Amino acid sequence: MTAFSMGPRIAARMAEIEPFHVVELLTRARQLEAQGRSIIHMEVGEPDFPTPRPMLDAAIRYIHTGDIHYTPSLGIPELRQAIADFYGVRYGVAVDPESVIVTAGASAALLLVLGVLVNPGDEILLADPGYPCNRHFVRCFEGKPVGIPVCAETAYQPTEEGVGAAWTDRTRGLLVATPANPTGTLIPSERLDRLTRLVARRGGTMLVDEIYHGLTYDISAMTALRFSAELFVINSFSKYFGMTGWRLGWLVAPRAYVREIEKLAQNLFICPSAPAQYAALAAFEPDTLEILESRRAQFRMRRDFLFPALRELGFGVAAAPEGAFYLYADCSAHTDDSFGFSRRLIEEAGVAVTPGRDFGSHAPERHLRFAYTTSIEQLAEGVERLRKLLRVL
Amino acid sequence: MTAFSMGPRIAARMAEIEPFHVVELLTRARQLEAQGRSIIHMEVGEPDFPTPRPMLDAAIRYIHTGDIHYTPSLGIPELRQAIADFYGVRYGVAVDPESVIVTAGASAALLLVLGVLVNPGDEILLADPGYPCNRHFVRCFEGKPVGIPVCAETAYQPTEEGVGAAWTDRTRGLLVATPANPTGTLIPSERLDRLTRLVARRGGTMLVDEIYHGLTYDISAMTALRFSAELFVINSFSKYFGMTGWRLGWLVAPRAYVREIEKLAQNLFICPSAPAQYAALAAFEPDTLEILESRRAQFRMRRDFLFPALRELGFGVAAAPEGAFYLYADCSAHTDDSFGFSRRLIEEAGVAVTPGRDFGSHAPERHLRFAYTTSIEQLAEGVERLRKLLRVL
Repeated sequence: MTAFSMGPRIAARMAEIEPFHVVELLTRARQLEAQGRSIIHMEVGEPDFPTPRPMLDAAIRYIHTGDIHYTPSLGIPELRQAIADFYGVRYGVAVDPESVIVTAGASAALLLVLGVLVNPGDEILLADPGYPCNRHFVRCFEGKPVGIPVCAETAYQPTEEGVGAAWTDRTRGLLVATPANPTGTLIPSERLDRLTRLVARRGGTMLVDEIYHGLTYDISAMTALRFSAELFVINSFSKYFGMTGWRLGWLVAPRAYVREIEKLAQNLFICPSAPAQYAALAAFEPDTLEILESRRAQFRMRRDFLFPALRELGFGVAAAPEGAFYLYADCSAHTDDSFGFSRRLIEEAGVAVTPGRDFGSHAPERHLRFAYTTSIEQLAEGVERLRKLLRVL
Repeated sequence: MTAFSMGPRIAARMAEIEPFHVVELLTRARQLEAQGRSIIHMEVGEPDFPTPRPMLDAAIRYIHTGDIHYTPSLGIPELRQAIADFYGVRYGVAVDPESVIVTAGASAALLLVLGVLVNPGDEILLADPGYPCNRHFVRCFEGKPVGIPVCAETAYQPTEEGVGAAWTDRTRGLLVATPANPTGTLIPSERLDRLTRLVARRGGTMLVDEIYHGLTYDISAMTALRFSAELFVINSFSKYFGMTGWRLGWLVAPRAYVREIEKLAQNLFICPSAPAQYAALAAFEPDTLEILESRRAQFRMRRDFLFPALRELGFGVAAAPEGAFYLYADCSAHTDDSFGFSRRLIEEAGVAVTPGRDFGSHAPERHLRFAYTTSIEQLAEGVERLRKLLRVL
């Protein structure tokens, strides 16, 4: 066989790494908007708010110096300290700044943790539905992501029974997210504590994604670090702190893993974005937190509008969405094909939502994710359009 | 075995991923500086110049909008277009903007390419000595980095004979860097063309790291895209463009691989830093290029000072360093232990350089890397200190 007769030679892992299906919808939405159609965006997984002004100002002051050089691979010491201090202020939990690792978004945090933990063939347990990239990170390192089907009855979160049943002698750990994407549900503190102890008893490692912390509406989320220092917590400046485009997150790691993570961070990333790190230094200032808390109040109002409105339209939202900015709705009263339905919503009603298939293989055809990352006025218009369409159906 | 009796369970790959040894020297340098000692820094692999003012201004204008949201995973279209245009202007080579992928530094570009190409057990050929992270990227995906020992006689670059001899039926491709780190040497255009055709004949894939393009002093480097569109070119805004801390690079990929790279980029990174992308839009403006060309002239003067000065001190620099900002010096006239020698240089002479062992396993104990990333005055002081120390030895 000559080189000319060959197509691209793609590594086997890529067959199991899926694109974000919602991107196709976004592309279609932009086409329709370019034609003058109005689209209500309830598909977008990022806050619509700008980065808070004190953080912008901090970045601009830093950039004016011109001295935008590599930082230490684990992040600038003052930011690691500020993050550690934040755990004391917000949760009353003492965190060693040496355990705090600043990363290029929660994405990089997950890549580093899984790179250090996962051998080929190792299994990582994950909720299905869940954030789709998680299983792809595991697959990248030749590990095996094992979905635990979760449903409304357990707030779409794994239970001890589910984890116990899925655990094998190849299981390396459990990754949970609280609040979760796409469901907005939390793991109750007692269950999180019990899961942590169960995983430790099995000799595995617990990974807890807390990137939607700060965005809870009826209760405060407690960090898993309250229950153990021997687990990994992944967090982000993207969601609560409004820094999506900057790409900055962090990781709190057990001390015994920090050196290995540093080695991998040096090699894979060199360092996180320096301007983003200097912007983030202003994240914990009172002025910034005041802005963020007022946004949290707005997200709550949006949820309190959208949640009953969707139920009234026959969408089943059984588990109370307590955090993040998502509602995961059962659309089986209207369709048994959520993907086709989402296309119809955009074409016929000008409403963009994310189909369930972006989040796993447990009943995706019956679910849609609605994001309340737009104004109440836009949400109300979206609901009105849905109402009209569903009446016609 | 209970969880409490267990230490950390680190994935096997980490045993083959080495830290940057120079970091220990840097830490020691900072200790000495904190004690009031003066240290001449010739170990640092980044330009000492600030990011050019037009790029800072572009970033600041963008940040003032506050609208710092996710961008497309492959980068903002106007930057992909600007990079494609630059290939026309600088090299006279037409590049399709759809083949240009903006990344979080060349690091992310390498991660994406190797993730899409390398199956477990696949071999990637690399020059030894070379940039150490390259073999670690391969190892991360369970591939096998295979070093080709290179020496001064072939300008520290692989030859067709070397590549032919190392090629096996598990070889997936060849990764070369021109100019190279740590040697500053280029692959002559004719050899690059022949290597490209050799790799294609063998059914492999050619990866060409061009991150030090723009930093050549006697000749212009020609992009490998001139010889084939069926190879991957990795580039960066860090070195020539002075953007290290921003973490931005790019990749030019064969069209047939772009969709797979996009999937992986969506999942592993979401997108590159938005402020960095807007800063980079000003990278190709005449004002910026004028600043960069004046810096190139300064780097040339530094090289022209340091190259003969080191030779005069008995350091062997056999292959003419034509680019980047490194001299790879044979120190065997003074020591057979470059690592111990580098410690001695910092302790006794206050001169920081990088020991050979950071770059591979081919005669590292006989080599040191000197970076001319500091002013001529500092370089002259460093040379003077070396002269005194070596006279005493």
